[in-house]
Amino acid sequence: MKLYDCSVAPNPRRARIFLAEKNLSLEKVEVDILGGENLAPTFLAINPRGLLPVLELDDGTRIDEVMAICRYIEELQPEPALLGRDARERAVVTSRQRKMEFDGMIAASEVFRNQHPQFAQRSLPGAGTDVLPAIPALVERGRQTLARFFDWLETYLADAAYVAGDAFTMADITALCAIDFAGWVDITIPPANTRTLAWYERVSERPSAQA
Amino acid sequence: MKLYDCSVAPNPRRARIFLAEKNLSLEKVEVDILGGENLAPTFLAINPRGLLPVLELDDGTRIDEVMAICRYIEELQPEPALLGRDARERAVVTSRQRKMEFDGMIAASEVFRNQHPQFAQRSLPGAGTDVLPAIPALVERGRQTLARFFDWLETYLADAAYVAGDAFTMADITALCAIDFAGWVDITIPPANTRTLAWYERVSERPSAQA
Repeated sequence: MKLYDCSVAPNPRRARIFLAEKNLSLEKVEVDILGGENLAPTFLAINPRGLLPVLELDDGTRIDEVMAICRYIEELQPEPALLGRDARERAVVTSRQRKMEFDGMIAASEVFRNQHPQFAQRSLPGAGTDVLPAIPALVERGRQTLARFFDWLETYLADAAYVAGDAFTMADITALCAIDFAGWVDITIPPANTRTLAWYERVSERPSAQA
Repeated sequence: MKLYDCSVAPNPRRARIFLAEKNLSLEKVEVDILGGENLAPTFLAINPRGLLPVLELDDGTRIDEVMAICRYIEELQPEPALLGRDARERAVVTSRQRKMEFDGMIAASEVFRNQHPQFAQRSLPGAGTDVLPAIPALVERGRQTLARFFDWLETYLADAAYVAGDAFTMADITALCAIDFAGWVDITIPPANTRTLAWYERVSERPSAQA
């Protein structure tokens, strides 16, 4: 197996942290998103959507979408469980992971892309659309959505040590990557969210956070 | 178990079709989204995010997010498998389902909400944000994204009878609901996409499509 990766990009980082928590080390192929390599013919032949990460299995099957990759890895190596330990917990992790993704990762991406000069004509990531000019109103919408993300996160951490309960899961990985991504546009954890601040320090200290 | 539902809304329909394919019939509680009932205190006490569907387990646990609900149901009643039959297939279904969701469901929602007078001050679904005025530029972005969605769908159906392979799965359910949602804003399958047109007719004829 090998992972098409981009060391500076937030979504590939989610996969790298997941693999590190599983103590798995895969061959990695670096793709330079900032240089546009993900939208060049060589990589589009690997993933026509032009997105990273992509996991290539030994039989040649290529799996894109970070959650599909993580789900596959979870079945390959179940311990430690990062997607939940039983049916109910897996449902809770799935639900909270998605909230962290929709209100966190995607909102941070909207703020970042729609104000960065490099993406002035590419409001959406990936291939398959024509020119899509940046939409400045999405910067404000993304900011409000991130405020809601921080609210949910503080609420979840009132009940448990981690985002989806008493164990570190994919929901924590996505929340951590969303926060660090939001930091690129100078949006940070509100100072009043003391549980989130303490959680952030704990999860950032895990060795996997450096992956 | 019971399902908080909204009979006219596209996301609850995904859960209803999933349940119908499993031949499961749950108690349903109708919540009137068009009348704003999902954002009123009674429902916010059930789901603070104000979104549907929500599955309530017999122990009182409430699971929101349609994919979390479907994942729970899949474990409760594995047959017929709608999320894949082995690890590789589950990864493919997860990946394609997400493409149908991001480029289909969410794009249709952006086109619909950002041009409909009812949502003039609510560009995003759900509770927890302040006033978010509609963003007209998202109508065009959503249209382009749906064009990409139709392209992927036609490509997938070149290889197999269903969106993620030779069996009907959640990826088909999401694609079907996205297409019918796009129809609300008069966006339809391109006439040249003959495989998609034939597939659409087949999946629409399944009894579950009426759920």
